[in-house]
Amino acid sequence: MTMQLDSSGKLRHLITLKDIDKPMLEMLLDRADSFVTGRGALPRNGSAFAGRTVANLFFEPSTRTRSSFELAAKRLGLHVLNLDVRTSSRTKGETILDTIYTLEAMSCDIFVLRDSEPGMPGFIADNVDPWVSVLNAGEADRNHPTQGLLDVLTMRQHKRDFSQLSVSIIGDIRHSRVAHSTSHALNTLGVGQLRLIAPESLMPAADEFAGAERHTDIATGIADADVVMTLRIQKERMNAAAIPDSESYYRQYGLNKERLALAKPDAIVMHPGPMNRGTEISSEVADGPQSVIREQVANGVATRMAVMMTVLETLHGK
Amino acid sequence: MTMQLDSSGKLRHLITLKDIDKPMLEMLLDRADSFVTGRGALPRNGSAFAGRTVANLFFEPSTRTRSSFELAAKRLGLHVLNLDVRTSSRTKGETILDTIYTLEAMSCDIFVLRDSEPGMPGFIADNVDPWVSVLNAGEADRNHPTQGLLDVLTMRQHKRDFSQLSVSIIGDIRHSRVAHSTSHALNTLGVGQLRLIAPESLMPAADEFAGAERHTDIATGIADADVVMTLRIQKERMNAAAIPDSESYYRQYGLNKERLALAKPDAIVMHPGPMNRGTEISSEVADGPQSVIREQVANGVATRMAVMMTVLETLHGK
Amino acid sequence: MTMQLDSSGKLRHLITLKDIDKPMLEMLLDRADSFVTGRGALPRNGSAFAGRTVANLFFEPSTRTRSSFELAAKRLGLHVLNLDVRTSSRTKGETILDTIYTLEAMSCDIFVLRDSEPGMPGFIADNVDPWVSVLNAGEADRNHPTQGLLDVLTMRQHKRDFSQLSVSIIGDIRHSRVAHSTSHALNTLGVGQLRLIAPESLMPAADEFAGAERHTDIATGIADADVVMTLRIQKERMNAAAIPDSESYYRQYGLNKERLALAKPDAIVMHPGPMNRGTEISSEVADGPQSVIREQVANGVATRMAVMMTVLETLHGK
Repeated sequence: MTMQLDSSGKLRHLITLKDIDKPMLEMLLDRADSFVTGRGALPRNGSAFAGRTVANLFFEPSTRTRSSFELAAKRLGLHVLNLDVRTSSRTKGETILDTIYTLEAMSCDIFVLRDSEPGMPGFIADNVDPWVSVLNAGEADRNHPTQGLLDVLTMRQHKRDFSQLSVSIIGDIRHSRVAHSTSHALNTLGVGQLRLIAPESLMPAADEFAGAERHTDIATGIADADVVMTLRIQKERMNAAAIPDSESYYRQYGLNKERLALAKPDAIVMHPGPMNRGTEISSEVADGPQSVIREQVANGVATRMAVMMTVLETLHGK
Repeated sequence: MTMQLDSSGKLRHLITLKDIDKPMLEMLLDRADSFVTGRGALPRNGSAFAGRTVANLFFEPSTRTRSSFELAAKRLGLHVLNLDVRTSSRTKGETILDTIYTLEAMSCDIFVLRDSEPGMPGFIADNVDPWVSVLNAGEADRNHPTQGLLDVLTMRQHKRDFSQLSVSIIGDIRHSRVAHSTSHALNTLGVGQLRLIAPESLMPAADEFAGAERHTDIATGIADADVVMTLRIQKERMNAAAIPDSESYYRQYGLNKERLALAKPDAIVMHPGPMNRGTEISSEVADGPQSVIREQVANGVATRMAVMMTVLETLHGK
Repeated sequence: MTMQLDSSGKLRHLITLKDIDKPMLEMLLDRADSFVTGRGALPRNGSAFAGRTVANLFFEPSTRTRSSFELAAKRLGLHVLNLDVRTSSRTKGETILDTIYTLEAMSCDIFVLRDSEPGMPGFIADNVDPWVSVLNAGEADRNHPTQGLLDVLTMRQHKRDFSQLSVSIIGDIRHSRVAHSTSHALNTLGVGQLRLIAPESLMPAADEFAGAERHTDIATGIADADVVMTLRIQKERMNAAAIPDSESYYRQYGLNKERLALAKPDAIVMHPGPMNRGTEISSEVADGPQSVIREQVANGVATRMAVMMTVLETLHGK
């Protein structure tokens, strides 16, 4: 079990939201909130840790998450090293730990890691130097903790009291690292109701998502919800998962205006992106007045700035 | 029709030089001139907009233009995000507008865009937030406005009075976004004479390049010219365009010392790069005393700094 | 013959260590030492040349060396341009010199170059402007001067007096640019003894490595050594070089604990990375108390900072 906190209880790594308690979670959300600026305004820039270095190691391709971490780091005055996976020594037979040790020796302070192999970020966190931090930027189908944080931050900006909140998540929940991490945070914050909406084949295992209701019917799953979150359907998974095609998925689970009308009138609509318009969500809803999808993106940069600041304070003092 | 200017007539986007009037063009050229420094000298660095962000989206590969924009931005103190097209979400089926909306939400202020699809930069400019600017870095065979600006800047540094100037452009004018943009600027500046030199198959459509003379014979096309600009021949286009091969193109249209002697003795030689030496230009001419090809490159960075400063002032005030 | 020094004897380019004399070498090592900081400490950051630009041109893939140069440059406040070889104009038929001239015109001050073609860095150094510097970051099987510097820096930190030192290098010495450069530096510093350990097929030509002993038997080659350096085996070369496979190479030349015990008890173990664990070195040795492999990496960044500072002072004064 990776220790995410140091001996004095400060955040050292961020691998999963499962073990992050409510005070820590709320501190991170407060801090992220403080990095949010108006649209078009000059982003907050920091310099307390100027000259420190972040290495982005994305072993799965990513545009948005990598860019979000990169901008967060640059706005904090950090140097950013983007390691190109395709030319990386990993393909030359170097073990991933040797790559990490090499970058540690070059004084990289934070590793931002995305990998399709479950357990990899924790494994690396268990093996780095005491003055180095690992941030999980997407781990197989298990964890995506900064996404979970930005999701609950976005909900909190609109709704505040989690105990009164009904959240519905629609889609391939079984394989979604987003759904896993967001539900960890929602549980910690004491969410009133969590409903999972998916065909049986995409439902998570029985011992996961404790306390959540499961609905194969979107109408009962969405009724009177405060928050409706749709997930990206991985088209590659369509055959395997008994989803014949985009059209029939959209017919059964696509979030359109009619279905959204079943939720509360002030319900917000969320999506982690990138969206398949016309598969899991209609454009009318994605771009409609209830959508907070772009706010999620803005909150993503703020959240990553907050997490980086926090681990740097843990490593190197305020 | 994309509005490049805001309601008070300030430059907001740069999509095409077609609509840029003479005072605006001259302001941009003056400003670019002020960013030119001697070779080997420390480049001017700016900080008025430090902390703002430029996103480079090059959907066609480019080394020089991307690097030129990147250095221009960095020297202005801007954060630069290079989006890797090959790992971009566009390949995952995300629409380009969703990519733009995502980057807007991350507080990108300027999009530098290259695309093989005509109309794309204007389409995006029509859809961004009011505090965001789009710069066209190469659009199909239509527009390459910063290249047009740097071309006329280079001419002005050597020749000054455009009304007395005879400019000859040689090559695949039909498919050249450079030729289109440079001729827009030359027309606005009231160029004395513009001659297009190409085989019939590479001549532009009859309704384009109004006022320009057309020559299939390089000798009459180049006689007494003040400026001789050769264009890159896309070798991929050779069969389609009835140019059998490099050698025969060079025989008919290659700019060598003998042909250059037909122009004025103080004529300058230009090329947008990258050059095919021995196809459209001889090395003797490319590296000779009349060549200003490297000055064009230096002017390119200065021009892009000028354009970025100008749109940032429009967006965010001085 | 490329002139690495300018007319007043200052370092202008770094192409090979062959011609670098002892005072210059020691100055570079002293300077590199001054850039070394404790592990986890904030790296030294410089600003004397802030606003200058480094262009990384790696025509062979590289993660570590490219990252090391990139971090060195960023920590000196320099702008860094990473040229992506795969989208570079070189593939469009532009000559490498035209690429260099273009980047010079964009005010790049330093070119960091890796290429599989011997002679390329020197050729480019012979052709750049007087205010531009070329640093060789790996040239075919010939030179890797910053690696040679960091190797002797690491030895000096542990051993000090080179005249009393016995150094053994094991592996594919014939094709190793590291072994070539490190031996140049060791010769200049007056190393007591240099032993090369390799099968005949991987031994260098007879006129190379003057003064070095040659051993096909690792036991006699390693006996009483102060420094044992193993080289990476290029697996691609295995058939050609009559090394049947990893296992038999490891059996004959792999550095394990038993063999290391033949060296002096305080011998240090070095490897330029990336390592093939179980081929040229055992994990027990690589991660053992005598290994200074990670120190080499840290010294690499410091060495590149020292070299960049030095050539910038030569180009632009202190």
